[in-house]
Amino acid sequence: MSRIAYVNGQYVAHAQAAVHIEDRGYQFADGVYEVCEVRGGHLVDERRHIERLVRSLGEIRIALPMPLAALKVVLRETIRRNRVRHGFVYLQVTRGVARRDHYFPDPATPPSLVVTARAVDPAKGEAVAREGIAVITTPDNRWERVDIKTVGLLPNVLAKQAAKEAGAREAWFVDGEGRVTEGGSTNAWIVTPEGRLVTRHADSGILRGITRTVMLDVAEQLQLTVEERPFTVAEALAAREAFVTSATNFATPVVRIDGQIIGDGRPGAVARVLRENFHSFAEVTP
Amino acid sequence: MSRIAYVNGQYVAHAQAAVHIEDRGYQFADGVYEVCEVRGGHLVDERRHIERLVRSLGEIRIALPMPLAALKVVLRETIRRNRVRHGFVYLQVTRGVARRDHYFPDPATPPSLVVTARAVDPAKGEAVAREGIAVITTPDNRWERVDIKTVGLLPNVLAKQAAKEAGAREAWFVDGEGRVTEGGSTNAWIVTPEGRLVTRHADSGILRGITRTVMLDVAEQLQLTVEERPFTVAEALAAREAFVTSATNFATPVVRIDGQIIGDGRPGAVARVLRENFHSFAEVTP
Repeated sequence: MSRIAYVNGQYVAHAQAAVHIEDRGYQFADGVYEVCEVRGGHLVDERRHIERLVRSLGEIRIALPMPLAALKVVLRETIRRNRVRHGFVYLQVTRGVARRDHYFPDPATPPSLVVTARAVDPAKGEAVAREGIAVITTPDNRWERVDIKTVGLLPNVLAKQAAKEAGAREAWFVDGEGRVTEGGSTNAWIVTPEGRLVTRHADSGILRGITRTVMLDVAEQLQLTVEERPFTVAEALAAREAFVTSATNFATPVVRIDGQIIGDGRPGAVARVLRENFHSFAEVTP
Repeated sequence: MSRIAYVNGQYVAHAQAAVHIEDRGYQFADGVYEVCEVRGGHLVDERRHIERLVRSLGEIRIALPMPLAALKVVLRETIRRNRVRHGFVYLQVTRGVARRDHYFPDPATPPSLVVTARAVDPAKGEAVAREGIAVITTPDNRWERVDIKTVGLLPNVLAKQAAKEAGAREAWFVDGEGRVTEGGSTNAWIVTPEGRLVTRHADSGILRGITRTVMLDVAEQLQLTVEERPFTVAEALAAREAFVTSATNFATPVVRIDGQIIGDGRPGAVARVLRENFHSFAEVTP
């Protein structure tokens, strides 16, 4: 079956799905995106993803490309046309097409909307989680507004590629004080030797991860002690366990940081229990 | 006459010129660009623009989309097909089209190349230069690798839009020490009360502007005293004159900064003489 993409009002064959060369997403990274899990054909945490999308658009003053009710229909139709049971839906909104000029175009310029959906075999992620992943650390060289989920992802691309070349799967950005901010496409967590769950507060140089938010609910329900605060690389290396969260990773254990083994080198119990309980707390919408 | 764009091997009508939705330029700002002046149908400072393009590509490890000799032909052919006598040629290279994933795609993935050309009436820029422009200052919140000319320009877009809404044309970024780094799409210069020309050193948080480099040659030939060092906003406000440089601005006088009048509020003599002499020093290639 061939993939279908939604592009500015039309459902088109993925292979031919295109945007204009002067789409501001292409020339200026002037756009934002969301990635939402699809499980059993249904959207996971759609409400929070849409809320965050609306916030991202508001922060850079791009109008909604269509009413939210219509957007929700497009998400579902894209999932349906691609027959995705388990996988992800990706949506990107940009400031539209206009003659190249840094200033915002005429306010009448319609924003661009692209939606794709892709099936993923859940067994793959499970296999990765059973093994645990390696991460590297790298100085956080990104712009200051990483709280906005923009498509300006080149620093993340370069960091994750460096991770891959070092035999790792994720790169953790580290601020000027030696404290981990977040991963290239995940939030970062540790469990201290005393069993406290630590992850950086979401209003300090990181994206407010949806999965991160849900995991905090899971942790509360499981009566785990949580500290929302920055942690250093040294703390992470001495942690009982470490893990990352994202819509595509749920909670995935980290077993090596910069080549050093974390805990006993095997996936930790807290990451496992969070991962197992995640979908009981996430909102699933038909 | 309708505009023509070069897109990945073909000359196409500009209105229909498109790239795939999974071009990494669109999804990750994973690409770089150059803007080169066209004067009398010829490229201005092509050699330096190509050199900088090669450096940008090298820094983020994107392959050249074609041999440089072929690229030069495409630039000329795009100019010719658009019958541009005076104006600009824009070229963008991205890491190509691949299923969305932060890691670099298969090395066999061809980079994407887009080239456009556009005529501009030189009288317009002259009129702006005769008036002088206003600039605002804004904290530099960009990533650390602004020495690479990437399409990740959202911070620049937001800063320049803020300038426009404040009745100005450009925004000057200011570092943590209160020193001007560069403009949203220009380099920043002042002339001190003692008549010294000051512009930030190119290896400290700015892009190495081609026009900036040529203007340094012009200044040397005119026996102006030049200091390549950072200057503060306070210094700029007390300057005898101020101006910006870029391939699309040459040297354009700044007469107001954050609403305060610079010098006597009229375009300065140094900016004028640099502007007048620029094209005698720039390399023009047939």
